[in-house]
Amino acid sequence: MADLDRVLATVDADLDASIERLFAFLRIPSISTDRAYAAECRRAGQWLADDLASLGFATKLNDTPGHPIVTAASNGGAERRVMFYGHYDVQPVDPLDLWESPPFEPRIVENAEGVKRIVARGSADDKGQVMTFVEACRAFVKATGKLPVEVTVMVEGEEESGSANIGPFVAAHKDELKADLALVCDTGMWDAQTPSIILSLRGLMHDEIVVHAADRDLHSGYYGGAAANPLHVLSKAIAAVHDANGHVAIPGFYDGVVEPPDYMKAAWSKLDLTPENFLGPVGLSLPSGEKDRLLIELISSRPTFEVNGMWGGYIGEGSKTVIPSIATAKISCRLVANQDPVRVRDAVRAFIRAQIPADCSVEFLGGEGSPAVAVTHDNPDLAKAAKALGDEWGTPPVTVGEGGSIPVVGQFKKVLGQDTLLVGFSLDDDRIHSPNEKYDLTSFHKGIRSWVRILAALAQ
Amino acid sequence: MADLDRVLATVDADLDASIERLFAFLRIPSISTDRAYAAECRRAGQWLADDLASLGFATKLNDTPGHPIVTAASNGGAERRVMFYGHYDVQPVDPLDLWESPPFEPRIVENAEGVKRIVARGSADDKGQVMTFVEACRAFVKATGKLPVEVTVMVEGEEESGSANIGPFVAAHKDELKADLALVCDTGMWDAQTPSIILSLRGLMHDEIVVHAADRDLHSGYYGGAAANPLHVLSKAIAAVHDANGHVAIPGFYDGVVEPPDYMKAAWSKLDLTPENFLGPVGLSLPSGEKDRLLIELISSRPTFEVNGMWGGYIGEGSKTVIPSIATAKISCRLVANQDPVRVRDAVRAFIRAQIPADCSVEFLGGEGSPAVAVTHDNPDLAKAAKALGDEWGTPPVTVGEGGSIPVVGQFKKVLGQDTLLVGFSLDDDRIHSPNEKYDLTSFHKGIRSWVRILAALAQ
Repeated sequence: MADLDRVLATVDADLDASIERLFAFLRIPSISTDRAYAAECRRAGQWLADDLASLGFATKLNDTPGHPIVTAASNGGAERRVMFYGHYDVQPVDPLDLWESPPFEPRIVENAEGVKRIVARGSADDKGQVMTFVEACRAFVKATGKLPVEVTVMVEGEEESGSANIGPFVAAHKDELKADLALVCDTGMWDAQTPSIILSLRGLMHDEIVVHAADRDLHSGYYGGAAANPLHVLSKAIAAVHDANGHVAIPGFYDGVVEPPDYMKAAWSKLDLTPENFLGPVGLSLPSGEKDRLLIELISSRPTFEVNGMWGGYIGEGSKTVIPSIATAKISCRLVANQDPVRVRDAVRAFIRAQIPADCSVEFLGGEGSPAVAVTHDNPDLAKAAKALGDEWGTPPVTVGEGGSIPVVGQFKKVLGQDTLLVGFSLDDDRIHSPNEKYDLTSFHKGIRSWVRILAALAQ
Repeated sequence: MADLDRVLATVDADLDASIERLFAFLRIPSISTDRAYAAECRRAGQWLADDLASLGFATKLNDTPGHPIVTAASNGGAERRVMFYGHYDVQPVDPLDLWESPPFEPRIVENAEGVKRIVARGSADDKGQVMTFVEACRAFVKATGKLPVEVTVMVEGEEESGSANIGPFVAAHKDELKADLALVCDTGMWDAQTPSIILSLRGLMHDEIVVHAADRDLHSGYYGGAAANPLHVLSKAIAAVHDANGHVAIPGFYDGVVEPPDYMKAAWSKLDLTPENFLGPVGLSLPSGEKDRLLIELISSRPTFEVNGMWGGYIGEGSKTVIPSIATAKISCRLVANQDPVRVRDAVRAFIRAQIPADCSVEFLGGEGSPAVAVTHDNPDLAKAAKALGDEWGTPPVTVGEGGSIPVVGQFKKVLGQDTLLVGFSLDDDRIHSPNEKYDLTSFHKGIRSWVRILAALAQ
């Protein structure tokens, strides 16, 4: 492992130069959602393409209907290839007056505990994280003359504004983007000491349920007690979705849901994710979901059914004695690996339909869905990456699912056929999307070192 | 009964003159809600006061902050006294272009089946009905020189615009308005052949339920499955209100509710009030309430719990993966005799509170209520009036409760201490509040005759 030590030493020696490069990248105000910054987005993409070209990558700034997508590929003859995804665009900076220093003038600030932080818009989300990977590649090239695995880079400029063009781009560039594994650096650490590998992202199915009762609004004095009230009907249907133990009672809802392996559940049960520290900050204390599951399961590896909006009848000031004709709920289900969004949608609809009285009707407006994505639990690259991270941080990574959804990662699996490991180094207090966004210098430095170790491990 | 026959014969002989008087009343456009018609409202009140004065009543046009209230009192020395309530104001006439003849130019129209109808705004609601009572008094005075019972008349001019001043007026004129019984002529026949006495009006309690969960809106990807969703909580609470048999499951809700006497239930079970003819016209077919009750009970003699409005979360276009922090429902309960609105409110609140998880909270914004009013089932005047109506129409009246509420009738009981019989002769097809309002000539003629018989009977 002399090679690895040399590369890590190079990372340490070159840290100041790495910071300077990141600062140059951060100074470009690449706000993707504001068309006034379109030229700055292109400039950021070009800056990254030029930097990758300096490492010997074949680079391209690919035009799209929106902002360009940077692609770069090494070609050193290594056996395996990884594809790295990130984004160079950033969130808007409003409210500007809450920033303690200008958002596009990066600086290093030391806090009261002596922790050094890079403060700038994009420092954590996602320029700083993208550069951990780029700097790791640079250190390999500088120290050894080559990369341990071939690397394809794809960095988009519209992640903060809807990612409209990345899906079609992936589909149109399958051969170019094909690799053994995808890597994403846009997630966080478990905590400041503990790294994390995100193994799955939940999918999403959303639908709109409209219950129709009488063909007009009715006076509750005349019809009250006799005519079906669609708000009662809908409430009863929603109430029936979860049983007393928090399970979703919809037949077929859990079809295909896989139990995580025992070793993973054992590791999860040792996490200090408690209702106090997870729900306390938002004013709650009792996990609302399945009573026989760990909190970490509820928010990552288990599917959910949530009502996101509901309305019907009179919702203005004062009172109105009406029995409405219609009641509506917008619902969404977070899906986990092997759940088919269409089957879940159909199961939900059949269940709701069965709750509706014979003289009422229900229609569904929606039903779009995207499946969850998950790394195969026995993918050997997972164990390699986990060991590499453990070596760097002195503690093995938490390997969990994340509750949210990043649709492009689904594309990597579906279109390119490759698993994705999501490894990132941001912290909960990085204030991404908010004023005074920061990225700890440790995140950046040890992030680079982590990628060095992971790339070396993936070559084995 | 020679006296009664002579009075009835007078009614028949004077019908044309009675119609002429009604037409004069109908020609005054006393639209109370439009201030432009304020002088016309006063003119209608004055017309009625003058007409009552011509019968020997001591009359007065009482000014209020709104339109004046007509009061009139006979003083012939009879043993008993009744107080009659009605209103001289009418609804607006829009949309005017749907009227087949000008709304304030009354005329008699014969339909294809030979049924004669008085067509004008106010013909059924309520000038025509008020005049059935006035003409009955007139026939007594003309045929016998006196009334069989003393009569106090109170006719307001703001019933169609909120009745804001009648309550305070009743409270301020208690002694003047005190009688043995109140009579109201502002309701309808059961059908064209069958008279009806409304024995009760339901009361009303309304409240607003606000469920609070997290202290901010949450992202359903991150918190879904773990954080309490107030729309689920509220739906479960609402769903728990009614059991599988449609009973309200709130402990104490039915406290004080009295079973109607068997003879009344027996009569009700013979009514042709079916789900088909009651719910069919609004597109429904299945009574939603208590399964062991007659439809007529559900809509008149039983209390109800209805959600009138409900909302929370995202209710705009498309979808938003939010778990809201708040969910709200506006509810109202129709109350029947002997239910205390405050006790019902407290029972509802205690029940809802018990459904709320420990880390959520609920607040209530509302809770106003007015009790139901009901004639005491064994009031002997009820039997007398029922027999009188049966004699006139050849079929005994249906004696039922009405689902709606007329707060001033509650005042008669509470402030004046007198029961109210609501007897009216309008029909379901009278188009009250709509263009081409009409009142069948039979309703008017036999309505006058009915009051003659009732007044005679009440004197016994």
